Amino acid sequence: MLGNFSYHNPTKLYFGDDSLKYLREELSNYGKNIQLIYGGGSIKRSGLYDEIVAVLKECGKTIIADAGVMPNPTSEKLVEGAKLARENKVDLLLAVGGGSCCDYAKAVSVSAYCDDDPWEKYYIRFEEPDCEIIPVACVLTMAGTGSEMNGGSVITNHSQKLKIGHVFGDEVMPKFSILNPKYTMTLPKRQMVSGIYDIFNHICEQYFSGEDDNTSDYIAEALMKSVVKSSLIAVDNPEDYEARSNIMWTATWALNTLISRGKETDWMVHMLGQAVGAYTDATHGMTLAAVSLPYYRHIMPYGLKKFARFAVEVWGVNPNGKTDEQVAEEGLSALKSWMKKLGVTLSIGELGADESMIEGIADATIILDGGYKVLDRDEVVAILKESL
Amino acid sequence: MLGNFSYHNPTKLYFGDDSLKYLREELSNYGKNIQLIYGGGSIKRSGLYDEIVAVLKECGKTIIADAGVMPNPTSEKLVEGAKLARENKVDLLLAVGGGSCCDYAKAVSVSAYCDDDPWEKYYIRFEEPDCEIIPVACVLTMAGTGSEMNGGSVITNHSQKLKIGHVFGDEVMPKFSILNPKYTMTLPKRQMVSGIYDIFNHICEQYFSGEDDNTSDYIAEALMKSVVKSSLIAVDNPEDYEARSNIMWTATWALNTLISRGKETDWMVHMLGQAVGAYTDATHGMTLAAVSLPYYRHIMPYGLKKFARFAVEVWGVNPNGKTDEQVAEEGLSALKSWMKKLGVTLSIGELGADESMIEGIADATIILDGGYKVLDRDEVVAILKESL
Repeated sequence: MLGNFSYHNPTKLYFGDDSLKYLREELSNYGKNIQLIYGGGSIKRSGLYDEIVAVLKECGKTIIADAGVMPNPTSEKLVEGAKLARENKVDLLLAVGGGSCCDYAKAVSVSAYCDDDPWEKYYIRFEEPDCEIIPVACVLTMAGTGSEMNGGSVITNHSQKLKIGHVFGDEVMPKFSILNPKYTMTLPKRQMVSGIYDIFNHICEQYFSGEDDNTSDYIAEALMKSVVKSSLIAVDNPEDYEARSNIMWTATWALNTLISRGKETDWMVHMLGQAVGAYTDATHGMTLAAVSLPYYRHIMPYGLKKFARFAVEVWGVNPNGKTDEQVAEEGLSALKSWMKKLGVTLSIGELGADESMIEGIADATIILDGGYKVLDRDEVVAILKESL
Repeated sequence: MLGNFSYHNPTKLYFGDDSLKYLREELSNYGKNIQLIYGGGSIKRSGLYDEIVAVLKECGKTIIADAGVMPNPTSEKLVEGAKLARENKVDLLLAVGGGSCCDYAKAVSVSAYCDDDPWEKYYIRFEEPDCEIIPVACVLTMAGTGSEMNGGSVITNHSQKLKIGHVFGDEVMPKFSILNPKYTMTLPKRQMVSGIYDIFNHICEQYFSGEDDNTSDYIAEALMKSVVKSSLIAVDNPEDYEARSNIMWTATWALNTLISRGKETDWMVHMLGQAVGAYTDATHGMTLAAVSLPYYRHIMPYGLKKFARFAVEVWGVNPNGKTDEQVAEEGLSALKSWMKKLGVTLSIGELGADESMIEGIADATIILDGGYKVLDRDEVVAILKESL
C-alpha cells in the first residue's frame, strides 16, 4: 500500500550535451555576487572552469571563489564557506562538481546567516534552518549522489570522526541544475564506478523495506535495471554517451524522493558506509560497496520475499522449482558478480580500515529503523567484521 | 540515447486518505475569490462537495460556483467559465473532479483575461498565453488523465467536430493537487476501467517510439506492470485501497513528462481517439481502447524490436525459440486479453460510430510524427475501419 505522503520537487533541470547554454538565462534571476564552489583542479583541466567564468563575467557577475571542496567536505570548510558567503553578501551559491560540492553548497546556504555552530545545529541536533537561506545551483560533473535534485547534504567532522547527512527541505534544494553527461567522462574510472555503486545503493536503500507491491518498488526496479545495463557498457567504454547519459539520469531519480513515496526506507548501508568513511576518508561509493553484501546477507532472512523478487525482477533469476531462499541467494550472487565487473571494493580493509577500528566505527554508526531488521550493536560489529 | 531536454514540474502533491486536510493551509496562499469547478452531482452525493465548501467557508473565501463541467468540456462552456472568472476577479480556480474538470480549469486560467477567442487561439493556432494567468488547483476524484500534474488541457468543439489538446507551460500547471484514492472508489466501474486504460495508453504513447535503450523506457515498463497488476485487483474489488492508490499514483507519473524525457513520443492513438470522441462524445479512455489494437497491429512491423521488448518486459512473454514477430504478436495478444478482463470497449461501433462517419473522423484526426510510422490518410481510414 502507498502510505500517505506529499511530493514536491521544484528543482529545474537542464540535461544534455548543450545544457550549459541555459546558465546565462538562469543567472539573470539572481543578484551580482556568485560564490563559485568547486573542488580541485579537474574542472580547470577540463576547461569547464574557464567556460563558466566566461559566462559569469559576460553576465556582469562578481565571482567569489570557494575552491578546494574536498571529497568528504568538512565542518571546518563549511565554517569558512559560510563566512565567505556572509561577508560577500552572496546572491547565489554555484556548485561546479560532484555531490560533495553540491552537498557543501547546501550546507553553506543554511549556515551563512546562522548564529549557531552549523555542525552542531544541523548535523548533530538535526534542526531546521531558521535564518535566511542563500539559493543554490549546480553544474554537475559526476553522477552518483543525486544531490542535484534533492535537499541532502553530508558533512564530515574529522575530530569527532563523524560523517552525517541532513536532508533539508524544498527551499534548500538547488533552484536549477545543469546535467551534461560529457562532463562525467573526464572522471577517473574508479570515481565513475564508485558513483555507479552509489546510485544502485540509493535505490536498494529505498527498495529493501516494506512488504507491499507498490508502484514505487516497480520504478525502483526499472532504475536498477537501467543503471546495471548502462554501467556494463560504460565500464568497457567510458566515452559511450548513451550509457553515461542513462547513468546520469538514473542517479537523479534514484534519490530525489520519488521512489520512497508511500513506503518505508532502510538507510543502514549508508549509515555503515558513512561511519567507515569518517574513519578512512575513503570514497563514499566504495564504502557502501564494501559493507553492502555482508549487510544484505544478514538481513535477507527477514525480507526473503523482497530479496527473491529482487533476484527475479532485477537480475533475471529463473525462480522455477527453487525456494525463495535459493532465488534470493542467486540474486545476491548476481549482485556480487556485477560489483566485481564494475571493480568496486568489496572489503573495508582495502579502504584502510582494520580490526582495531571496528569498535570505533560501530560507535560512529547511527542505527536507523525502517528496514527488515533493526540492528543491535553486536550485529553492527558482526557486519563490519564480515566486511573487513 | 537520452536526447537533450529540460525538466521542471512544480506541482505540489498531497497523496493519501487524509490529504484533504492540506487544503486549508494551501488556501492561505490565495485571495478571497475561489471559482469552484465541478461536474455533475457525484461530488454532492459522495459528500465531498460539502466537505470542500465547509473548508472554503471556514477560510473566509467567497465561492463562485462553476458547475456542470461535462466529460468532454466544450469551447462554449470555456467561454462562460472564462467570463465568470473575469467578472468575479477570481484568485484561484479549484477543480474538484476528474481530468475534465482539471483540463477545463487550465483552459479557463489562460482564457479569463484573453481578448481573443480561446478556442481559436489555444486549440487551433496553438499560441501560448500572453495574458494574466489565474492559478489552478485540483482535488482529484478519478485517476486517468494525469491532468493533476501536467499542463495538458483538452477541449471539444462540437460545431467543428474537433477535440483538441494543448499542453501549456509550468505556469498553468496546478499549483497543488490533492489525491485521495478513496475519492476514486465511488466511480462507476465503467469509468474506472476507462481511466485505467487511459493511464496505460499514456505510457504506450511515450514508449512506442525510438530505438534506444534509455532509462525512460525502463520507467515506462515499471508503470505499465504496476497498473496492470493493480487493475486486475481493482476490477475484482474496486474498494481495494492498495490497488486504487497504486493506480492513482501511476496515473500521475504516466503523464507528467517524466517518461518522455530524452525520447520521441507517438500520440496517434490519442489523435484517433479524440477524433472518435468529437463524433460520438464517448468517454475518452474508451475511445483510446477501441482504436488501440488496430493501430498497434498496423505499426508493429515498423517497431518490431520495441513490440517484442514490450511483450517480454511488460507481459512476461518467454522469447526463447521465437522470432521477434512471434514474441511481439504474443505481447499484443496479452494486451488484448487484459483489455477484455478490464472490460473496455474494443470497437468504435459500440461507442456510436458507424461506417458513414469514417471519412469525417479521418478528417478530424490530426496526424503527428514521432512514432515508428507516420500514417497517411488512407492508413487512418484503414485503422478506423478496422476499429469498427
